[in-house]
Amino acid sequence: MTRPSQRANDQLRTIEIIRHYTKHAEGAVLIKFGDTHVICTASVEEKVPGFLKGKGQGWVTAEYGMLPRSTGSRMDREAARGKQSGRTQEIQRLIGRSLRAVIDLQKLGERTIHFDCDVIQADGGTRTASITGAYVAMVDAVGTLLQKGLLTETPITDSVAAISVGVYQGQPVLDLDYIEDSDCDTDMNVVMTGNGGFVEIQGTAEGEPFSRQTMDQMLDLAAQGIQTLAQLQTQALAT
Amino acid sequence: MTRPSQRANDQLRTIEIIRHYTKHAEGAVLIKFGDTHVICTASVEEKVPGFLKGKGQGWVTAEYGMLPRSTGSRMDREAARGKQSGRTQEIQRLIGRSLRAVIDLQKLGERTIHFDCDVIQADGGTRTASITGAYVAMVDAVGTLLQKGLLTETPITDSVAAISVGVYQGQPVLDLDYIEDSDCDTDMNVVMTGNGGFVEIQGTAEGEPFSRQTMDQMLDLAAQGIQTLAQLQTQALAT
Amino acid sequence: MTRPSQRANDQLRTIEIIRHYTKHAEGAVLIKFGDTHVICTASVEEKVPGFLKGKGQGWVTAEYGMLPRSTGSRMDREAARGKQSGRTQEIQRLIGRSLRAVIDLQKLGERTIHFDCDVIQADGGTRTASITGAYVAMVDAVGTLLQKGLLTETPITDSVAAISVGVYQGQPVLDLDYIEDSDCDTDMNVVMTGNGGFVEIQGTAEGEPFSRQTMDQMLDLAAQGIQTLAQLQTQALAT
Amino acid sequence: MTRPSQRANDQLRTIEIIRHYTKHAEGAVLIKFGDTHVICTASVEEKVPGFLKGKGQGWVTAEYGMLPRSTGSRMDREAARGKQSGRTQEIQRLIGRSLRAVIDLQKLGERTIHFDCDVIQADGGTRTASITGAYVAMVDAVGTLLQKGLLTETPITDSVAAISVGVYQGQPVLDLDYIEDSDCDTDMNVVMTGNGGFVEIQGTAEGEPFSRQTMDQMLDLAAQGIQTLAQLQTQALAT
Amino acid sequence: MTRPSQRANDQLRTIEIIRHYTKHAEGAVLIKFGDTHVICTASVEEKVPGFLKGKGQGWVTAEYGMLPRSTGSRMDREAARGKQSGRTQEIQRLIGRSLRAVIDLQKLGERTIHFDCDVIQADGGTRTASITGAYVAMVDAVGTLLQKGLLTETPITDSVAAISVGVYQGQPVLDLDYIEDSDCDTDMNVVMTGNGGFVEIQGTAEGEPFSRQTMDQMLDLAAQGIQTLAQLQTQALAT
Amino acid sequence: MTRPSQRANDQLRTIEIIRHYTKHAEGAVLIKFGDTHVICTASVEEKVPGFLKGKGQGWVTAEYGMLPRSTGSRMDREAARGKQSGRTQEIQRLIGRSLRAVIDLQKLGERTIHFDCDVIQADGGTRTASITGAYVAMVDAVGTLLQKGLLTETPITDSVAAISVGVYQGQPVLDLDYIEDSDCDTDMNVVMTGNGGFVEIQGTAEGEPFSRQTMDQMLDLAAQGIQTLAQLQTQALAT
Repeated sequence: MTRPSQRANDQLRTIEIIRHYTKHAEGAVLIKFGDTHVICTASVEEKVPGFLKGKGQGWVTAEYGMLPRSTGSRMDREAARGKQSGRTQEIQRLIGRSLRAVIDLQKLGERTIHFDCDVIQADGGTRTASITGAYVAMVDAVGTLLQKGLLTETPITDSVAAISVGVYQGQPVLDLDYIEDSDCDTDMNVVMTGNGGFVEIQGTAEGEPFSRQTMDQMLDLAAQGIQTLAQLQTQALAT
Repeated sequence: MTRPSQRANDQLRTIEIIRHYTKHAEGAVLIKFGDTHVICTASVEEKVPGFLKGKGQGWVTAEYGMLPRSTGSRMDREAARGKQSGRTQEIQRLIGRSLRAVIDLQKLGERTIHFDCDVIQADGGTRTASITGAYVAMVDAVGTLLQKGLLTETPITDSVAAISVGVYQGQPVLDLDYIEDSDCDTDMNVVMTGNGGFVEIQGTAEGEPFSRQTMDQMLDLAAQGIQTLAQLQTQALAT
Repeated sequence: MTRPSQRANDQLRTIEIIRHYTKHAEGAVLIKFGDTHVICTASVEEKVPGFLKGKGQGWVTAEYGMLPRSTGSRMDREAARGKQSGRTQEIQRLIGRSLRAVIDLQKLGERTIHFDCDVIQADGGTRTASITGAYVAMVDAVGTLLQKGLLTETPITDSVAAISVGVYQGQPVLDLDYIEDSDCDTDMNVVMTGNGGFVEIQGTAEGEPFSRQTMDQMLDLAAQGIQTLAQLQTQALAT
Repeated sequence: MTRPSQRANDQLRTIEIIRHYTKHAEGAVLIKFGDTHVICTASVEEKVPGFLKGKGQGWVTAEYGMLPRSTGSRMDREAARGKQSGRTQEIQRLIGRSLRAVIDLQKLGERTIHFDCDVIQADGGTRTASITGAYVAMVDAVGTLLQKGLLTETPITDSVAAISVGVYQGQPVLDLDYIEDSDCDTDMNVVMTGNGGFVEIQGTAEGEPFSRQTMDQMLDLAAQGIQTLAQLQTQALAT
Repeated sequence: MTRPSQRANDQLRTIEIIRHYTKHAEGAVLIKFGDTHVICTASVEEKVPGFLKGKGQGWVTAEYGMLPRSTGSRMDREAARGKQSGRTQEIQRLIGRSLRAVIDLQKLGERTIHFDCDVIQADGGTRTASITGAYVAMVDAVGTLLQKGLLTETPITDSVAAISVGVYQGQPVLDLDYIEDSDCDTDMNVVMTGNGGFVEIQGTAEGEPFSRQTMDQMLDLAAQGIQTLAQLQTQALAT
Repeated sequence: MTRPSQRANDQLRTIEIIRHYTKHAEGAVLIKFGDTHVICTASVEEKVPGFLKGKGQGWVTAEYGMLPRSTGSRMDREAARGKQSGRTQEIQRLIGRSLRAVIDLQKLGERTIHFDCDVIQADGGTRTASITGAYVAMVDAVGTLLQKGLLTETPITDSVAAISVGVYQGQPVLDLDYIEDSDCDTDMNVVMTGNGGFVEIQGTAEGEPFSRQTMDQMLDLAAQGIQTLAQLQTQALAT
């Protein structure tokens, strides 16, 4: 089997992480997983939602959107339709949980970091790119708080990144693009920390149910991909 | 460690499956996973949604709801608030995908089966109970179509059931109730067919990220629980 | 004339009142008017809506819903459509007014009792069953408050129940089921206290306008039906 | 007892019915019940709603609104809030049913008459004024259809009007204004045809439940008031 | 060229301004620009929106609506559709800005004047009539505040009025009615103070782009029309 | 007076126009007016809205959005709030009208061009940048139709661009950035064709009403700025 993208089964797309992409946000990252481009901003607000008031802890939350023509055919604008789809809500809840897994909300203090992940061009894997880019934006936003003296130590406990794995024409492959994703039997998104712990795993058999052996192979691929992403995050933050 | 429910780590709650619970629906099941009680109805409609018109295939879709006082403190009614929460949408999308995994939509023909899973009492595990009960309602609804001669062979290809597993006080446990769920480190919902194939897997580290070894233990527990549920489904359908 | 249900013109359907039907609510009743089954829960909240804050009185309010397949053909789920129908709003306003007629809101104190009447199977008369069942749930909820010492005397001043009357094939009849209701000339819902006072009356000529004489006959039937319901409520609460 | 309005207990407010109040609608009436002023328009549309297509009959429907400052203190505009209140929906459903009671929808043919009842100044009794004025607008709209030859005989079978009755300081009174309505024990709206048949009756005990005797007295008052309104409708249409 | 309305190119329609048109509002004006009739009410509320709390200044805001059958064919009711159109929002924002231009919000104090401009009959120019009438209602509302001693000097700094100009069959004309508006090349709404300052100008080339010379001619016409409107406002307020 | 941006009064910010910015859309432009960055895509759809069906002409429409953190402090996401603000609707209506002014909808044929203008970084003038960039995207989208042979001649009749002018500290200035815009007395947006015709003009006195002389000066500045923008559009399209 040859992947449509000509990549090896365990090969990521070209990853690019551009910090300070826009000027207003405390963290502003443009991340590219091949032709998937997502702007991830982190905005710090010096208050918490009502359910946390007075509890001495912070909050981290995320929203996700796609520009209407980020995809091959134009989608309706969610703001015009008056509601976010179930898919959008699933993704933004996933992003929020993933980031909360690597930040100590007590240490963050009574403030909120809002993440906005907006897809300007889509080619599969927008949620995994969003999580991976949002982590970098979070580090920058926390850096701002440290610089201003609003925090004295970082509340971030580990890095976090995400990647998709799937079964394409019978073989486990890493980091599906849109063509592969549209035609695969199984699609699984894995979120892991830089230290190799699992944060989230969401797998769906699009066609045939899959076996335990396939599951194990996919988890191996994912762990390897996440390691590479963690290194790229570190490099991007080092410059 | 002793579970709050006194159950063994690999022990399901008492499961009860009552068919023909209401009189109008083609399939109508009350399923109980301990104190979690869900009414699952299957309604057959002789048409398909717009995006499938004229394609010679059927559709299966699901909606989910909780009665406002199915829980310990009253929740707002989603119809009154004017929208379904992200959690509700996630769950009903999961139920729909799970059932579509075990039905041949071509053989179903140009008709839709709508599932409604309404929780009348909640004690953890409402989504797994919903999937497990909805499968039984699906068999009854298809039975009606076979009896009427609208179908000559069943489009159902396998059974499907779901169960939760988690890590409670450091140990993998099966079928979490509300108290365990509120206090666990990791929560994973697994959907499998009667033949042992994976359909869906959704795991979240609520606290600490979890290791590959823990993942493996949880998958073992889930597979065993699903086997028992599949037997109970068969028994319920035999009477 | 023979009624489709074979009942005498002044005969109620079989009434069943099951208390403590679910475990979380302060009052939780399953009431059956024949094949019409409604879960009525009463939830106590220790605060009042904004317009009553600081006025030293309580509030009683109700919401109503039908499970999508409680009826012969599946209805859209109101939560999914994003709004409650005019019919739903009329019914829940009626239930709320009926219960407020028999409770002293000053004596209730600054707390709210929320009623949820959810129809799990419908065969006509869902609003009258809801009111009749909700009264029983209210007594149980107030009982909880008395037991906890939050109230020292009951704020309930009388019992309340409701029944429908109509003109079917020219003759006044009591407690219409769905078949009768669909084909009747006049439909009237009457809410009365156990002491025989009128709380609400809502009559509609579906076909021909009706005369004063017919009105009088319907009111007589209703008064008699309510007396029976009041006795059944008392019996249910005695056990 | 003296009524705040100084009227006798069985005395209507000054009623004024102005036809052709605006120029576009097929029927356009400004009706005044004292200081309650409502514009009632009837708009003919040459099609029917989806559920009636091809059934060879027409439809009559109504919408109701209040200008934000038609009342003593400004209300939120329903269009700005994004939904109609339960009260609004109850009233417009009542108006629609009342008009359908006196028109033969078969004879109307496959067309719809939309009524819009917009309150420009409110002083109690807006729904009864709306029904009474809308009937006059309906006659004018049907007159237009007869003139154009779209109808050869009127589908209107009787006149219809509405009035409120209540118990104010212990005595039954006719046509409550806002001050009386705010302070009455019982409020009942009665819709009757010119021939004296009941179309709708909606009574509510605001304070104490009311007796059968009081009910009878209120019905007598209402019947007398409706007779007067029917005469005023006839006079208005004669000019 | 002759205008459909037979008016000279620089001729306004017959303008009528009726104060105290309804009884509840602090200012209540019915304004007629020919067959365009708008009720403009000003409602004083003794508080300000959240974003102005504690800033020692007042606020002026406006809402706009059209009765469904104010136009030649019935429009959907915005309250029933559940949202205001883009056109409605544009117009009400324009009205609000226009009025704020001639009132000193500091001198108004911490209170809000809400304007409601409701079109009961439309024949073009509803937004210009709304602004012109709302100004008169504002003077009356402020008069009420002065009378009650809540203000000691008027916060109103100038008068404001609005008129449309356009290019109809090649010639600049003043105050377009509906027929002219539907068929014109350019449509411009101009809001000016009584002292001749520009407050708002909104011009649109419906067909061909227009030249600077045409722009100049239209501005001349508008300035002249506004002068006349300012005089009519003064006269109306003098009586 | 010195402008905060140090620019001469008649000086535009640095303008940059990048074509083919994303890969899916028929036209995809990133336009920069200084620190204001907008992605403008043109999407061709081979059908028209319902109101134009069968009329043998095309349609051009636009939507506008701002990423939540395109601004100094994070704004609510309109998709999450469930509706577009009045400001958003005004802007997208303006963009649509501006583009329709320079395209022959008959020649376009029965197809729609949807424009999406999404602000990724805002510093004043987002609507003028949107119009100016969308024109370039329109030329590219039409180019695609010509290449595919779906059109044989261009329906575009002229170019169109937009710029803001205002009065800042008493002096007319061109192309206001955010700081100038927040503090100016008058703000006017002007849309003109490459041939110098006016398409739209929208001016607002934020503070003092402005005089005819100021109006004339602002129109002169705008005409000059538009000329420069038209040249830059031509250059961008030539490469």
